Amino acid sequence: MNIKQRLTDNGYELPQAPAPVGNYQATITTGNLMFVSGQMPLHNGNLLYKGSLGNELTIESGQKAAELCALNLLSQIDQSLEGRELKSVVKVEGYINADESFTEHAAVLNGASDLLYKVLGERSGHIRTVIGCTSLPMGAAVEISAIVEVI
Amino acid sequence: MNIKQRLTDNGYELPQAPAPVGNYQATITTGNLMFVSGQMPLHNGNLLYKGSLGNELTIESGQKAAELCALNLLSQIDQSLEGRELKSVVKVEGYINADESFTEHAAVLNGASDLLYKVLGERSGHIRTVIGCTSLPMGAAVEISAIVEVI
Amino acid sequence: MNIKQRLTDNGYELPQAPAPVGNYQATITTGNLMFVSGQMPLHNGNLLYKGSLGNELTIESGQKAAELCALNLLSQIDQSLEGRELKSVVKVEGYINADESFTEHAAVLNGASDLLYKVLGERSGHIRTVIGCTSLPMGAAVEISAIVEVI
Repeated sequence: MNIKQRLTDNGYELPQAPAPVGNYQATITTGNLMFVSGQMPLHNGNLLYKGSLGNELTIESGQKAAELCALNLLSQIDQSLEGRELKSVVKVEGYINADESFTEHAAVLNGASDLLYKVLGERSGHIRTVIGCTSLPMGAAVEISAIVEVI
Repeated sequence: MNIKQRLTDNGYELPQAPAPVGNYQATITTGNLMFVSGQMPLHNGNLLYKGSLGNELTIESGQKAAELCALNLLSQIDQSLEGRELKSVVKVEGYINADESFTEHAAVLNGASDLLYKVLGERSGHIRTVIGCTSLPMGAAVEISAIVEVI
Repeated sequence: MNIKQRLTDNGYELPQAPAPVGNYQATITTGNLMFVSGQMPLHNGNLLYKGSLGNELTIESGQKAAELCALNLLSQIDQSLEGRELKSVVKVEGYINADESFTEHAAVLNGASDLLYKVLGERSGHIRTVIGCTSLPMGAAVEISAIVEVI
């Protein structure tokens, strides 16, 4: 499976994978598992979705933010495969910048899960967690990290 | 080890494993690791514990919520073993709906760790993280996910 | 690599690894992966950094707290190697006690990533997630958990 091709076929563009800004890596592969650092809703270096879900942002904005995080995850994975192939997404960890009143965390993270399903089909089959945070790096609305299986 | 039997022996009932409501899975097994999606304090489809720890809910309610999350984890694991056996719980991730004043996150998560120990004995031996969240899906008081080893 | 020696060489002291206070473990090793429970900014049993980042604590305090959490992670790992060797840090999960206004989560977690890099060099190469929490166990300013590869 060619991730870039699958994205193009579905009308998406693979964003440039953001480089880590510190003493850490974007991805680490050990055995058949690739771990990916938390990705933000960045496009070409710009943070497109800031603020918190609940009284500030709409669920639709949150879903778009989650989708953009998922595109950055795919970009990091694509760039790190080094001849190996993505077998399956294993775990998606969704962190939602959300206030006390918010209850639709699952709907927001669907923005990422649906994108992964559209692009990867059966290989998107992940488990997930999703929680509400007081704040996220740079004021981001959503942050998503992942573990994937490679062969 | 028969999880259902062990629960019955300890006076617990295995709840029906909640089905995922989106493009994700309840569990994914890769190699000897089974990853389980975040479980809520659901019983027969009803969310029994809502609200936040601190000024709203008592620690005892939080512990009961954590115990129910753990029962749902066991139910998901039991349903996904497909002939394999649970060797050990590896990681428990506890997410507590909690306000700024709350400090007893560990006591709340003990509701899950104690249940796992009672039911699984030596096989319950997990590491864990526990944090306070502004909000959780559906307003749940606690969410818990896990990684377990299967043989 | 001798972790204790590397710490001494860099002017650090290996803190005593805090024992778990419940039905869970400090570390679990399965295959080549060692999972480590969330560590607090504890030194000799005293929690040195309490409170939340944003209006309460400075970024420098947060970085010191993150560094101390990382020292405790190294202590737990060192104590659990049982003849095996640390090959690489795989994942660092940073939980920051932070209010809604905070945006410098990455700078705070650098306190841990920089310490790991100073002590472990190329073996420190982790991916990471970092989020803001309403509250953490005992009122801690930072909590950090990790997954490492051992050989």
